[in-house]
Amino acid sequence: MRDHGGPPPLLLDCDLTEEWLTGFLREEMARRGFGKAVIGMSGGVDSALTASLAVRALGPENVIGVRLPYRTSSQESLDHAQLVIDALGIEARTLEITPAVDGYLANEPDADAARRGNVMARMRMIALFDLSARYRALPLGTGNKTERLFGYFTWHADDSPPVNPIGDLYKTQVWQLARYLGVPQVIVDKAPTADLVVGQTDEGDLGISYPRADEILNGMLHGFTHEALRARGYHEDELNIVSKRLNGTHWKRRPPAVALVSQSGIGESYLRPVDY
Amino acid sequence: MRDHGGPPPLLLDCDLTEEWLTGFLREEMARRGFGKAVIGMSGGVDSALTASLAVRALGPENVIGVRLPYRTSSQESLDHAQLVIDALGIEARTLEITPAVDGYLANEPDADAARRGNVMARMRMIALFDLSARYRALPLGTGNKTERLFGYFTWHADDSPPVNPIGDLYKTQVWQLARYLGVPQVIVDKAPTADLVVGQTDEGDLGISYPRADEILNGMLHGFTHEALRARGYHEDELNIVSKRLNGTHWKRRPPAVALVSQSGIGESYLRPVDY
Repeated sequence: MRDHGGPPPLLLDCDLTEEWLTGFLREEMARRGFGKAVIGMSGGVDSALTASLAVRALGPENVIGVRLPYRTSSQESLDHAQLVIDALGIEARTLEITPAVDGYLANEPDADAARRGNVMARMRMIALFDLSARYRALPLGTGNKTERLFGYFTWHADDSPPVNPIGDLYKTQVWQLARYLGVPQVIVDKAPTADLVVGQTDEGDLGISYPRADEILNGMLHGFTHEALRARGYHEDELNIVSKRLNGTHWKRRPPAVALVSQSGIGESYLRPVDY
Repeated sequence: MRDHGGPPPLLLDCDLTEEWLTGFLREEMARRGFGKAVIGMSGGVDSALTASLAVRALGPENVIGVRLPYRTSSQESLDHAQLVIDALGIEARTLEITPAVDGYLANEPDADAARRGNVMARMRMIALFDLSARYRALPLGTGNKTERLFGYFTWHADDSPPVNPIGDLYKTQVWQLARYLGVPQVIVDKAPTADLVVGQTDEGDLGISYPRADEILNGMLHGFTHEALRARGYHEDELNIVSKRLNGTHWKRRPPAVALVSQSGIGESYLRPVDY
């Protein structure tokens, strides 16, 4: 039952959402002149859902799944990516990023885990865009709304592809739609991880579970104050975790700041009313 | 004398522009909590101007210039970058991207020059952001308005830094301001090149000189039609070169397209009226 005093429910109409997102993909591909899509398959649910949607929109013959392991990547992640590739019957490619990453890190042997993780994530972007050129296939983005709002991604890496079908779905909505579309159960059920550091999980990093985070974000984005959310049963601690991440990462969701010296700044004048 | 029937003149008030851009840099650094800036120094005039502005805004002790050569980069580019570093008295670092680039390209030995160039450009982005984390220094962008309007840059590479002081200056305005600020003459006078392919020059790639391109772009951005521009002495061929590049690259100046499924899409609702 809909709670009329609260924000819109997080429960998806999966049938309608599938239709909407496959239509979006077909339209964006056509408009950009691409027949094929390429997706970095991490073994996680976001890329699995994106690939499922792409196959429904474009057919399996027009979707390429690429696995981009680093030497510390877990075998489970690789196996899960392959599971999705096999289930969908799409073309696959595995490309080791280890020589490139280690080639860079030899310059910076003391880099900490965060810096190493960012180098890996961005190296995957390089590979995805390069394979895009090779196969004439459009890279699809796989960032969900929760991680985008939390700024829980590497800039110019996870957020880099020009078209993203799932970026307005919260993580719990990704799970809903993935279940509905038949993404392998083991992938929907496992704890999400960026697999950049051994043993890392998203919820461990964030300090809050996805279901709680999504409900709180949904409330905040619809104008509910901390006080109103406390009255609805959320704790100050978890509200602070969410609002701190949300407010501290606006810059990651914006294009670079460019100094304006004219009346014809890019994005500020003639480019505003264009189609894309 | 101002031509009252034409678009605004491209001639800069260099004194005012310097003041405006150094103020922009100080403000953006403070707002983001950074005391130092890091700039990829290519040996060209754009990065030389950016570094000059940064030194005026922040002092030489707060600017780091990094040289990021690949094995095919020209020695002249490296020398010119060093010339600027020495003239400004800033801290410098040289980091070879060759092992990282070649580590990647070993997977794709048949990649053509364009793909190789994009891998190099993006590898420089990785280095710049990683050194940003190491030195706690904000990466500054160095893309000028002409190349941004032409889409003449690698996505998630040249355009990647969060703050860009020169992005609303046409190339000919970059030259004006660089001369005014005392950037070494040899750098202002040489033919611009991305130095990704031996012998390449920008104007050779583009098929038009920067002075002509800037005048035409300036006209088009202020609403002058091809017909009106022909009447002002521009040829159909050069108008077509410019409009084709301009119109074909809108997507490179926009954030990724994300499918919207809610009333709270990122960038479409609550994020619109934020400060940055």
